Amino acid sequence: MAIRRQDILAAAQRILSEYGLADLTMRRLAAELDVQPGALYWHVPNKQALLAELADDLLARVPEPSSRRRWDRQLTQLATDLRTTLLGQRDGAEVVSASRASSLDTSHLGKRIVEIVQAGGHTHAHASASRDALLHFVIGYTFDEQSHALMAEHGAAPARFGDSDAAYAAALSVVIAGVRAPTAGRAAPRPAG
Amino acid sequence: MAIRRQDILAAAQRILSEYGLADLTMRRLAAELDVQPGALYWHVPNKQALLAELADDLLARVPEPSSRRRWDRQLTQLATDLRTTLLGQRDGAEVVSASRASSLDTSHLGKRIVEIVQAGGHTHAHASASRDALLHFVIGYTFDEQSHALMAEHGAAPARFGDSDAAYAAALSVVIAGVRAPTAGRAAPRPAG
Repeated sequence: MAIRRQDILAAAQRILSEYGLADLTMRRLAAELDVQPGALYWHVPNKQALLAELADDLLARVPEPSSRRRWDRQLTQLATDLRTTLLGQRDGAEVVSASRASSLDTSHLGKRIVEIVQAGGHTHAHASASRDALLHFVIGYTFDEQSHALMAEHGAAPARFGDSDAAYAAALSVVIAGVRAPTAGRAAPRPAG
Repeated sequence: MAIRRQDILAAAQRILSEYGLADLTMRRLAAELDVQPGALYWHVPNKQALLAELADDLLARVPEPSSRRRWDRQLTQLATDLRTTLLGQRDGAEVVSASRASSLDTSHLGKRIVEIVQAGGHTHAHASASRDALLHFVIGYTFDEQSHALMAEHGAAPARFGDSDAAYAAALSVVIAGVRAPTAGRAAPRPAG
């Protein structure tokens, strides 16, 4: 029986949700699908390729922000939805982080951020720096949230109190303010004459 | 022969530098020190405790920024030196990330960032949000750099071109601009009357 790409992805997601990234091996994936490991290689030659598939699938779930909103609100929406999407999958931030090390800046999401910032009237250089700042902030932040939740579950860290959505929104607004105002706080240029 | 805390730390750093975080186990650490695993437990009861020691040692190497510089330049210096320190240790960002999941915000570095932002005339709430934005950005960014370098070393990702220090500085300046100007880009309040 031929295995389909979407069956491999679904099986990998089941293992991830139930056991976590550390237990997601090609061997285990083959067992879950009841095939020999060799049968997978035509679709996914190795774990890196599998992670890339999982990450692509996860990132594709981030909704496109409404183009009727102001550009900076589109960015806030995108970054808020990215966190929600990553938190919705066990070890989501780690999957994206591990698989995107090679290509985060060239991902679809990275390109959208650059377009949105340029639509706000900024240079390509500032838009690229903003993409790097925003993506690494969101993924770093969410990675920490998921690691901490796992540690708290195992009693290795105290549970966190307070409103985690509000804390994220406050930190995100700092980064977005920097995207809006690249030269804020510098001395204003003197008027000519 | 009694083992000293600093001998354990030095042995852990040797294993980390030579083999990486995945191979740093309590068993291997004991073998490196030529003792039984039980002999370590008085100093470091488990891997989490070991990671915390390694992270504390790494973060303590980040120099205190000069207090004669303007507050926002102190932040830039701190964030630049933090990246340099993490990149100087194999898997440095992962060690800090894994061990700090429970306590990044309450670390010495986190407290210093809050103090510096408050010295710049900002509220405690903005200083806390800035700490979260800055630390997660730096660690997320550096984690990606180290993961990518490792993948490139194994031929699993193409080498990156361009000036990586300049790319980091540009992204960092976006975050710092947001710390300086929390309300930048919002509609200016109308003058009264």
